[in-house]
Amino acid sequence: MEPRISLVTLGVADMARARRFYQTLGWRASGPGEGVTFFQAGGMILSLYGRAELAADAHLPDTGIGFGGIALAYNVRERADVDRVLDEARAAGATILKPAEEVFWGGYSGYFADPDGHPWEVAWNPGFPIQDDGTIRLPG
Amino acid sequence: MEPRISLVTLGVADMARARRFYQTLGWRASGPGEGVTFFQAGGMILSLYGRAELAADAHLPDTGIGFGGIALAYNVRERADVDRVLDEARAAGATILKPAEEVFWGGYSGYFADPDGHPWEVAWNPGFPIQDDGTIRLPG
Repeated sequence: MEPRISLVTLGVADMARARRFYQTLGWRASGPGEGVTFFQAGGMILSLYGRAELAADAHLPDTGIGFGGIALAYNVRERADVDRVLDEARAAGATILKPAEEVFWGGYSGYFADPDGHPWEVAWNPGFPIQDDGTIRLPG
Repeated sequence: MEPRISLVTLGVADMARARRFYQTLGWRASGPGEGVTFFQAGGMILSLYGRAELAADAHLPDTGIGFGGIALAYNVRERADVDRVLDEARAAGATILKPAEEVFWGGYSGYFADPDGHPWEVAWNPGFPIQDDGTIRLPG
């Protein structure tokens, strides 16, 4: 298995609402129909799919909305971008889970939840610079 | 917000077990210490972090292990790779959630769960070719 992730699929309760949220943040939606939405996200794809359909597809029982033990992160180039992106997400309909604060690893970070509760960290990490093309590289 | 994901962080109950699982699949671990593991995954990072610590970091109550409404996907270049990767994952300690099968969108796919229950789809999708560098591009 090569070290890569092709898609991250978020289960959603209301496709139109979820699609509008990411579009409002500036992401460009494409997709074959009403049941699924794709966003090209750098070299991978973020997809939106019905939560119940995703659980069924994975042969998993849906135990209800709650912390899924997973978080996405969006790292920014400059410290000030953290607050700007959290504001942008709130304006688009996100819930702020944690306002930005200084963190023990030397950066500055906060969290929002998208309309379906999926947590996104927005972080400035001076140890993990963002390349011009938006990719991120571990040091060393 | 640019359309990109910097990191996907998986909450884990046993760091050594989770780290070993991804290493066995061929991923190269790095990280500053015992509390977190990073894997460079194309232009992004997969990180492992304690599940309780991740919930606390996101200011979310941990409602217990279950379907988190999210799935990762690993798309392969050839149809036969799907079964090979599922076998590889099982050998490394994964649970097969769904053996590979023909799917309505014209591909071939199955699911495994990593040792912490995080679902990964392994898919061959002839409509979404994988580039030489491992990235995936939406058609059109």
